[in-house]
Amino acid sequence: MKNNPFGKRLAAFSAAVADKGLDAAVVSGQSNVMSLTGVDCDNACLFVTPRSVVFYTDFRYTASVNRTAPWLKTGDIKKFNGKKPFPSGARAFAKIGFESSVPYSKYLTLKKAFPKAELVDVLQSILDLRMEKTPEELEKIRAAVLLNDEIWAEAQKRFSPGMTEKDMAREIKKLMIERGDGEAFETIVCVGKNAAECHHVPDSTVWNGKEPVLVDMGVKLGGYCSDMTRNILPDRPSRLYKKVYSLVLEANERAIKALKPGMTAGALDRAARSFLEKNGFGKAFGHSLGHGVGIDIHEAPAAAKRSKTVLKPGMTVTIEPGVYLEGNLGVRIEDLVFVTENGCEVVSKSEKPRF
Amino acid sequence: MKNNPFGKRLAAFSAAVADKGLDAAVVSGQSNVMSLTGVDCDNACLFVTPRSVVFYTDFRYTASVNRTAPWLKTGDIKKFNGKKPFPSGARAFAKIGFESSVPYSKYLTLKKAFPKAELVDVLQSILDLRMEKTPEELEKIRAAVLLNDEIWAEAQKRFSPGMTEKDMAREIKKLMIERGDGEAFETIVCVGKNAAECHHVPDSTVWNGKEPVLVDMGVKLGGYCSDMTRNILPDRPSRLYKKVYSLVLEANERAIKALKPGMTAGALDRAARSFLEKNGFGKAFGHSLGHGVGIDIHEAPAAAKRSKTVLKPGMTVTIEPGVYLEGNLGVRIEDLVFVTENGCEVVSKSEKPRF
Repeated sequence: MKNNPFGKRLAAFSAAVADKGLDAAVVSGQSNVMSLTGVDCDNACLFVTPRSVVFYTDFRYTASVNRTAPWLKTGDIKKFNGKKPFPSGARAFAKIGFESSVPYSKYLTLKKAFPKAELVDVLQSILDLRMEKTPEELEKIRAAVLLNDEIWAEAQKRFSPGMTEKDMAREIKKLMIERGDGEAFETIVCVGKNAAECHHVPDSTVWNGKEPVLVDMGVKLGGYCSDMTRNILPDRPSRLYKKVYSLVLEANERAIKALKPGMTAGALDRAARSFLEKNGFGKAFGHSLGHGVGIDIHEAPAAAKRSKTVLKPGMTVTIEPGVYLEGNLGVRIEDLVFVTENGCEVVSKSEKPRF
Repeated sequence: MKNNPFGKRLAAFSAAVADKGLDAAVVSGQSNVMSLTGVDCDNACLFVTPRSVVFYTDFRYTASVNRTAPWLKTGDIKKFNGKKPFPSGARAFAKIGFESSVPYSKYLTLKKAFPKAELVDVLQSILDLRMEKTPEELEKIRAAVLLNDEIWAEAQKRFSPGMTEKDMAREIKKLMIERGDGEAFETIVCVGKNAAECHHVPDSTVWNGKEPVLVDMGVKLGGYCSDMTRNILPDRPSRLYKKVYSLVLEANERAIKALKPGMTAGALDRAARSFLEKNGFGKAFGHSLGHGVGIDIHEAPAAAKRSKTVLKPGMTVTIEPGVYLEGNLGVRIEDLVFVTENGCEVVSKSEKPRF
């Protein structure tokens, strides 16, 4: 694993395999494999024992893996899925780790491949290891977040009255392809009261240039995601909109200020939630405060009410309180932050407008 | 199921549930749910018994499902995943159908939800039903294919010497967002000998305007996919390139001519394969002839060597023979065709250049 920038995480996983008394673990989830090796490959299977690692893939990818990740020993995935050539002796293994996220049909294949083995779910171990980002990963996420800021600035210039939500989403998607590697998730654009639906799909609602617009967007860059929500303020805000927006903004800022390493992700959620509750909008904040972001758009930790995960430097988390009043309005303000030694760094730099 | 344009397929599935002696089937794969209801929803669970259908989803989607698919009875997915409120009596069910494509963790949830039931894989039944498209589906696929032709024509105008594979792929992606609903799969652009890798990922290889370019592209439109491969011919083709290209084109045309309803998908594959074999390029044609296309980019039938699936009117299939000579060249020519009463209709209209 020498020179593998993910070597530390892979070594920790290998140690976890040993700790759990497993003979080996089979990892095939694309993001999981990438998080342990740096290799993004849609047909790979990592075979990890306490003492060895083999990266199984097919002929289409072997050459490029050997070139880009020379520290990895590669094997032919066809042989791995077949009858004979496992690492010698593997068919007699008694305990094999697997990811409970694999399709049931794949689980059956594993059962067949290791007829004597008890299959043990190790997904959580991998997700836990992915929670703490390497410095290189943080830089990649930062680059995606900064690009997101740039795209948001440019997109706003392109928005004009008469455009539909779909038109506005299309401008963002195009910018994400021009300047990055495309969307990290389906861009959300909500005009006016459509923002009351927290996962509104952009439709043909026309923006008159005066209504508020909520945009939730993330770009992929170099294998990593960003995530941010901003609102274009209405021309003549109702008193209620002003009040809700200001409270959501304060909830966002309070959570950012409250964030300290060592606290639980649940306590972070409560920092924003209790403030909105006190102000009478607790029920209207129907989702969790946030989530980690990395290779996937949703990673651990979940900043959810009951989360006991302890926040540590190197973790990422979104701070995205929201208030949704059906048929009326919706506001969500979301930043991506890095947990640091002393608190957190707000990586999203896009302006959060104020009244 | 009255007025449901997918009612016939749903009724057939409901009948299959009865035929298999199942009390019910739980369908949650997004494409599968869409193929039975027309509703594209990323958090849905269809509960099908021999006599009833309930579409479970969450509060974010219920209103829009009730509006767009009023023939569906909806239920709260939270309750469905929870302890109590299944359709009354469901916890005592003895045999429940499920999709073996669900994550293993979801399989465990089902096990828990139906503690007395034997879980029976019904995935294949659904895939089989999806194989024969409804007339409405064929029109949607046709629209996606025609848009694909249009985008390919426009993209070629935008290609110029000095562009990288990534640049060219980016032009296609942008067009797909501007005019359709984005990519059906990651666009493949291969300059020169990169085409020898049949799933080459566009990189920074520069096109000098004289080398051949292979482009494999598909656009999503209205929930359905297209799929097509074309080649820009080299300025001064080698004798080998000319020979291979002409043979691949003839293999494509022979398969199209050979296609008749009632034949197996395996026989269709052989129509192209035996021709390439006879000409000495059998081994260089390392993949299957084609696959169905619909809601997903890869659907049944697989036009593969050993496939016994009988081709029927209403099915879609790609005809995409290819020859790959490592380190040298690669050619693939792909059309999407509809199986008809007498043969097939070639829906892809983009010109296939000839020497």
